[in-house]
Amino acid sequence: MDRKTTINELKEKIKKFCEDRDWNQFHGGKNLATALIIEAAELLEHFRWKSEREANKLFENVKKKEEIEDEIADIFYFLLRLAQRYDIDLSEVLERKLKKNVKRYPVKKARGTNKKYTELR
Amino acid sequence: MDRKTTINELKEKIKKFCEDRDWNQFHGGKNLATALIIEAAELLEHFRWKSEREANKLFENVKKKEEIEDEIADIFYFLLRLAQRYDIDLSEVLERKLKKNVKRYPVKKARGTNKKYTELR
Amino acid sequence: MDRKTTINELKEKIKKFCEDRDWNQFHGGKNLATALIIEAAELLEHFRWKSEREANKLFENVKKKEEIEDEIADIFYFLLRLAQRYDIDLSEVLERKLKKNVKRYPVKKARGTNKKYTELR
Amino acid sequence: MDRKTTINELKEKIKKFCEDRDWNQFHGGKNLATALIIEAAELLEHFRWKSEREANKLFENVKKKEEIEDEIADIFYFLLRLAQRYDIDLSEVLERKLKKNVKRYPVKKARGTNKKYTELR
Repeated sequence: MDRKTTINELKEKIKKFCEDRDWNQFHGGKNLATALIIEAAELLEHFRWKSEREANKLFENVKKKEEIEDEIADIFYFLLRLAQRYDIDLSEVLERKLKKNVKRYPVKKARGTNKKYTELR
Repeated sequence: MDRKTTINELKEKIKKFCEDRDWNQFHGGKNLATALIIEAAELLEHFRWKSEREANKLFENVKKKEEIEDEIADIFYFLLRLAQRYDIDLSEVLERKLKKNVKRYPVKKARGTNKKYTELR
Repeated sequence: MDRKTTINELKEKIKKFCEDRDWNQFHGGKNLATALIIEAAELLEHFRWKSEREANKLFENVKKKEEIEDEIADIFYFLLRLAQRYDIDLSEVLERKLKKNVKRYPVKKARGTNKKYTELR
Repeated sequence: MDRKTTINELKEKIKKFCEDRDWNQFHGGKNLATALIIEAAELLEHFRWKSEREANKLFENVKKKEEIEDEIADIFYFLLRLAQRYDIDLSEVLERKLKKNVKRYPVKKARGTNKKYTELR
């Protein structure tokens, strides 16, 4: 579905879901950011104490993968909702950030290193 | 741009950005989930100590809004990268989760309340 | 018990608990910091969608308060474990940080405001 | 200092610091839990993209260790403040939680494994 689905279609779907339930009153920026970080922690919880190798193996287990996908969906849901509520064009802000990062992480210097841009020379 | 941009287009853009820099070696599931939660905290940081009202006012300030958008872009970037790395169809998992939530939060019971589905009667 | 208990006594208790289970192999700095943030999110989860007023009322409910205390205990556990593993004197680093904050937040300027020190004038 | 310092002494110090600045109005449970998770993310940030081995090496670098300690101090500060504000005896709740965990993680079963108690048999 990702091949055909636009961001806007997803935003509209979520808008309807939330407004049908009269949730605008709870869905302010701070509350949505709070919900988002809680879901991000639930995603991370799947990898707790695991090595990177063990963590990556979880994606090969159908049941585990579905659980992880559910957390990812929750994060995406709050991200879309936040963007929809405050008129943020996700594709545009991503594009803008990528442009910044192209400068911060020039291929020549950033290639194969895990350093932060402030530490690259 | 959100009206025309598909999820897949964004995934492809990010894949290229990361592979040009040979970052697959760092971008395992656990590391990406870790990066994501760090960015979620940077978003939340903008609202620290603020009331919901004060928090929402930040979106009216052009400079502040742009800073917030940058954090949202970072979260989106890691979410797309995670999905791209592990063949997760974001539209599909979101759709699946929404279906679950339609059952968990039937309009009649969930309308206007901030209760968790486990507490709804 | 907080009146009589020293930080070191708690560190020793936790060291024993973990070493009895041969957990040093999992308890590196990154993993412990990861566990800590997951527990911090579980604490925050109790306050999700709540106003500050509603959040504060939870402490008056005996059962809810105990649940919150359990999350606080989990955070404290990982904080003590991290300090114990890497020879960090918590009282000392707290004292050092408070001294910094006394300068960053002089009473005259910081009184009654929720601004960050970088925004105080 | 951890050998001699009681939890209560630290709570009192922080209480004074905050009340001198008239910060009770901002320091409700939800706001403090929010601040705590933001600091937990700043700690985790030091380990971003690092392997456990690289992460542990940071503690051997004096400057890096001090930066990490500063984040740990921030977490501890908010934890103590939360406990002080809501009359939570940290030693007591930790003790209670350890007792639960002794049952959840019996030495025989939990030794040398990174499984969650719900997965131990």
